[in-house]
Amino acid sequence: MKVYKYPIKDTWDAICIRPADDNTQVMETVKRVFSEVEAEGDLAIQRFNEKFDKNESSLFKIELSEILDSTSKLSDELKSSIKLAINNIKSFHTAQRQENLQVEVMPGIQCSQIAKPIDRVGIYIPGGTAPLLSTVLMLGIPAQVAGCEQIILCTPADKDGKVNPAILFAASEVGISEIYGVGGAQAIAALHYGTDQIPKVDKIFGPGNQYVTAAKQFAQMQGTAIDMPAGPSELLVLAGESSIPDFVAADLLSQAEHGVDSQVVCVVENESLIVEIEKSIEKQVADLPRKEIAQQALENSSFVVLKSIQERIDFINLYAPEHYIICSDQEQEYLDGLTNAGSVFLGNYAPESAGDYASGTNHTLPTSGFAKAYSGVNLAAFTKQITVQKLSETGIRNIGNAVIEMANAESLKAHANAVQVRLDYLNKQERDV
Amino acid sequence: MKVYKYPIKDTWDAICIRPADDNTQVMETVKRVFSEVEAEGDLAIQRFNEKFDKNESSLFKIELSEILDSTSKLSDELKSSIKLAINNIKSFHTAQRQENLQVEVMPGIQCSQIAKPIDRVGIYIPGGTAPLLSTVLMLGIPAQVAGCEQIILCTPADKDGKVNPAILFAASEVGISEIYGVGGAQAIAALHYGTDQIPKVDKIFGPGNQYVTAAKQFAQMQGTAIDMPAGPSELLVLAGESSIPDFVAADLLSQAEHGVDSQVVCVVENESLIVEIEKSIEKQVADLPRKEIAQQALENSSFVVLKSIQERIDFINLYAPEHYIICSDQEQEYLDGLTNAGSVFLGNYAPESAGDYASGTNHTLPTSGFAKAYSGVNLAAFTKQITVQKLSETGIRNIGNAVIEMANAESLKAHANAVQVRLDYLNKQERDV
Repeated sequence: MKVYKYPIKDTWDAICIRPADDNTQVMETVKRVFSEVEAEGDLAIQRFNEKFDKNESSLFKIELSEILDSTSKLSDELKSSIKLAINNIKSFHTAQRQENLQVEVMPGIQCSQIAKPIDRVGIYIPGGTAPLLSTVLMLGIPAQVAGCEQIILCTPADKDGKVNPAILFAASEVGISEIYGVGGAQAIAALHYGTDQIPKVDKIFGPGNQYVTAAKQFAQMQGTAIDMPAGPSELLVLAGESSIPDFVAADLLSQAEHGVDSQVVCVVENESLIVEIEKSIEKQVADLPRKEIAQQALENSSFVVLKSIQERIDFINLYAPEHYIICSDQEQEYLDGLTNAGSVFLGNYAPESAGDYASGTNHTLPTSGFAKAYSGVNLAAFTKQITVQKLSETGIRNIGNAVIEMANAESLKAHANAVQVRLDYLNKQERDV
Repeated sequence: MKVYKYPIKDTWDAICIRPADDNTQVMETVKRVFSEVEAEGDLAIQRFNEKFDKNESSLFKIELSEILDSTSKLSDELKSSIKLAINNIKSFHTAQRQENLQVEVMPGIQCSQIAKPIDRVGIYIPGGTAPLLSTVLMLGIPAQVAGCEQIILCTPADKDGKVNPAILFAASEVGISEIYGVGGAQAIAALHYGTDQIPKVDKIFGPGNQYVTAAKQFAQMQGTAIDMPAGPSELLVLAGESSIPDFVAADLLSQAEHGVDSQVVCVVENESLIVEIEKSIEKQVADLPRKEIAQQALENSSFVVLKSIQERIDFINLYAPEHYIICSDQEQEYLDGLTNAGSVFLGNYAPESAGDYASGTNHTLPTSGFAKAYSGVNLAAFTKQITVQKLSETGIRNIGNAVIEMANAESLKAHANAVQVRLDYLNKQERDV
């Protein structure tokens, strides 16, 4: 890890740069996948499944019996862990439900805002050796709580067309039964266009490799909503006197093991902490199965020492971390000053892993500084807000002239007329009485 | 307007198609604008301003004296109309403020969700003969209510570098003072990259022509958030026995005058309504200054007759209208069945114009069926939600093993370790006591 001691403000932007790939080539491949899926539907899907996953199945939907079978393939400990996580995630996301809003802004003018679930959502779960069963929970549960009518899950199948049982079990526990063994950019194309076998959706959620990420971007350009732009995962730890170096080191490594393009940043209140944390990293990394990945990620990573709390707060807001652990006696000051972050972990007993799996918050979060403008996935991501207005005769009389004035100022005469015909009608009625 | 009588469900998708442009050529131009602004900054901006708006100014920021002068150039009626609209929009958007959420999901695990304003937002206001002063209110007010720190407004200037006084007055009334006389794709590029004169922002809002729309799409691909994808404006009216044909006709025309690519759809409960509405359209359109535009838009437009209320509800949800007027004795049933719309107008006295200007709801709404997945602009669009978790010793003990089980199932050993070091520490402490 690099060490930046008291860097001046002009250099902060450079310190905040994330490792990034050029995806021009990737996007070209994605466009080809989309155009073939659009033209040939399931035939193209099958061809790509064969090419990328060695999966030759012509039927993509996972049968109910395979889903139900998954329960026999998992340990009781894992199953009860999943159930505990589900409870916490469900209770936090259920608490996010909002009452519909109704306001009488002026006599006779009622404005309201009502939340409705997005009808059809697609959830993409990456496959491979490490099945992201936790992401099934993080996307499936809020979709269910929101009341989405159709929840489609796509995930790569193995060469026999089978999907990892941990993913199937997690899906079935959250009530998802429409699961397709399709991965990569072809899965995103299928969810965007719809095919004979796979339904079109209104919004696509979920992580993935650079092909999946580019495919989601392309789908968004073509009109299907996506959860958020994605980049490599990252963690920023603010370590103060009260932090425990072994914990900080373990947290940094938990992020670093994600991928070689992950990044961790450790902002310290006191220069002297760095040595102890580095020593502990060295000790802990040695035993990790994903040691090489973690070590490479640490090369993109840094310690930052800054003098004042205000400087640290400003730097962290500029970085806008996806995950942000605050371990300091001045926890509340850091929290009050915070403007940009995905999810925050407070104190010595809130490792990032807690939120990754089971504390109840969502782990699908904005990376790469997107926390400046995006929220993580939450209940609201599966709903949309519709506004409603009802005007009485008094209501239209109260704002009618203002609308006419403003419409005329915008040279939109028919807009003015739509009010004028109503005022004329009411005036005539009054005269006739 | 075309008339579809009792169309079968298989044909509905075709009826719902919006007029659309191919923007491939436009996107090429936009990419060139972006790369020149990135490379040359303000010099490129000046060159594009000169080319597209004949504006040769090298300083883009509108001086405070010009902003203050605007008040002398507007009629008292227009100024008080704007103030009335501001009051209503402010009170509806202020009511959208949410309490921060805090939940103890399990003993020792506190999860919360806190809203923070987006720091820097850019507002684009199209120029031309009809200054969209109402859009200044619709974007500026929620930005202020949310507490955004920096609100940058870009709008094209005339050949002398001056901006329409109605826009300046509206901006100053909502408290915006950073106004730049820059329009088109170059304005969006400036807000995306930042230049010496124009600050970079985190999210860009506002309508515009196809160049501005493509520029916003491109900025989004490059990492700057945008309000929503944009297409031509549209209105769907559900007309029942209780509707008044002159009102329906006026509403359809108010939408049709927007542009030749606008679309209006009138779903009728009873075939016999069509003749009267058409007659009234013919009468009213004759006097409109934007008659030609409205007439062309009506060619993209249609009446749809459907037998049952359920069919009408299903069709309307499939169309997912940006604006939706419900004029029927069964208003509540239509509202209960509604899943997709931008903004809804209830009864005979709620024309779309009311919401366009002054009822209090926002007029920046999802077009082209995007209402299936997107909300209109509201207070939430100017904020992001950050989740926070705090775990006590009890908290980490309660979920520690579950996290370790799940992390191991995902082959993420360092994730498990981050919990294990804490459990080991606590166990050791307990033994030591």
